[in-house]
Amino acid sequence: MQDLAERIRQGDLRALARAATIIENRMPQAEALLRELFPLTGQAVIYGITGPPGAGKSTVTNELVKALRAEGAMVGVLAVDPSSPFSGGAILGDRIRMQQHHADAGVFIRSLATRGSLGGLAAATLELCLLLDAAGRQSILVETVGVGQDEVDIVRLADVTVVVLVPGMGDDVQAIKAGIMEIADVFLINKSDQPGAERLEQEIRAVFATAHQPREIPIVKTVASSGQGITEALAAMRQVQVSKPRQAVQQWERRLRQMLVERLLGRVDAASLRHASEAVAARREDPYTAVARLVETMLGRIR
Amino acid sequence: MQDLAERIRQGDLRALARAATIIENRMPQAEALLRELFPLTGQAVIYGITGPPGAGKSTVTNELVKALRAEGAMVGVLAVDPSSPFSGGAILGDRIRMQQHHADAGVFIRSLATRGSLGGLAAATLELCLLLDAAGRQSILVETVGVGQDEVDIVRLADVTVVVLVPGMGDDVQAIKAGIMEIADVFLINKSDQPGAERLEQEIRAVFATAHQPREIPIVKTVASSGQGITEALAAMRQVQVSKPRQAVQQWERRLRQMLVERLLGRVDAASLRHASEAVAARREDPYTAVARLVETMLGRIR
Repeated sequence: MQDLAERIRQGDLRALARAATIIENRMPQAEALLRELFPLTGQAVIYGITGPPGAGKSTVTNELVKALRAEGAMVGVLAVDPSSPFSGGAILGDRIRMQQHHADAGVFIRSLATRGSLGGLAAATLELCLLLDAAGRQSILVETVGVGQDEVDIVRLADVTVVVLVPGMGDDVQAIKAGIMEIADVFLINKSDQPGAERLEQEIRAVFATAHQPREIPIVKTVASSGQGITEALAAMRQVQVSKPRQAVQQWERRLRQMLVERLLGRVDAASLRHASEAVAARREDPYTAVARLVETMLGRIR
Repeated sequence: MQDLAERIRQGDLRALARAATIIENRMPQAEALLRELFPLTGQAVIYGITGPPGAGKSTVTNELVKALRAEGAMVGVLAVDPSSPFSGGAILGDRIRMQQHHADAGVFIRSLATRGSLGGLAAATLELCLLLDAAGRQSILVETVGVGQDEVDIVRLADVTVVVLVPGMGDDVQAIKAGIMEIADVFLINKSDQPGAERLEQEIRAVFATAHQPREIPIVKTVASSGQGITEALAAMRQVQVSKPRQAVQQWERRLRQMLVERLLGRVDAASLRHASEAVAARREDPYTAVARLVETMLGRIR
């Protein structure tokens, strides 16, 4: 692991790819590797890119990559799809769109999709960010495909969160009020050559002006398919990154909590769980007694 | 709690409402109450209603409630919104639409929305289902507002899962392939008076026919706003419920696992977590060492 870590530190692409696979597949050596790499991390800026399906997140990401590469920055891209039943087809499209960067060693791209493990995807995303950070990628773009709580958990790992919207979303703009306000740092109105871009901008401003804690939020109009507005978007993202106090401790609290869940669930014995489930399904035991017993068994096995 | 449980068993509406609040707010007495009620459960049929925003899930749910009530069944409805950033506005609309049942003691409705607690919403939904079951509600409709992994977790609690789609969704139908196939029991093509209903049906059939494990899936065309097709939808849902082996043990495995996560996270000491996060953010400690220490501290506190 020390050798692999050293090669990653030196920017060896094959070592990086191998390490990404080790981490993505939750292989046993992942932890030792990440322990080695951890002291090298903390340099990269992580940008989260989120928004509803059809907003053009992948095209925006792609154009941001181009802009960053034009400046000579080393870039990492993670396209995360928690396999929402209604967005599951998107990953392949992303991969194809991203192929134009395939020959460029300055862009490292991974698509991530898992389902069923609570917190597992967010944990893998975080660890891949640490890997890319240790490998000297200065800018990491984490693009989420879906729009659920999982994506919010993932986006919370980012230093700067970009929300991509498009004109003509109707009621969906109303819904911005709900959860996105907490995490949004920059809004992009993509496909802004379509009717309704001005109105959308006004609506976003109104939402933030009338919030519990009113604040001004940068809004940039883009037409990502032609690269329009991308320079301005990147400037706004950087402005936020420079001016926003980096909430590293709070971020790590969330991250450690997620790691804890994963670690504890990994300790649940499958046979005990099955046995308990049978007893509960047959109403021989209530689920609370069963869970209390499972916790006891788990602790007993560790001690 | 024994008294409250007894009143719930007898169908007392005020007791039911009070218990629902106790459970929804995760109040300390919830567990004792649910232990009391658990032996009474296992009678209700739980129907999950899911689908993308705008498909008309609330209207479908509303019409299903009417049809069930016309048969004299006691009904429970849980509208679950994991506060996806893009769907957060919907709950209020649901509440308003559901008000026509307000005066009917045979329909008990709760809207549920929480965010931030991994697994917490699914756990609360399950417990409210157990409560409604114990209170003699024969049919429980769990409607999810969003479309992410959280919703999938919630819908997995159901005996029969209904996926509501609408014509003209474009690429989204492709995405059915991804995750919904595992959980869908019945498809409703709502707003089927709009162009594209036939094509959508063909596409759904094609997806299931060419699947890894091909199967026939019931597809019912509805226009929920006028009640059209609802009788047929309910018949299809019941047909599935009768013919599908009830996977109670597997269901309880998922449920117990979720309860375990919640219980274990509840045991994490906030001060220890903050202390560990500070050490990690400052790179004084790597996160793996920190998490291992947190696990030890947690176990130590329990022993």
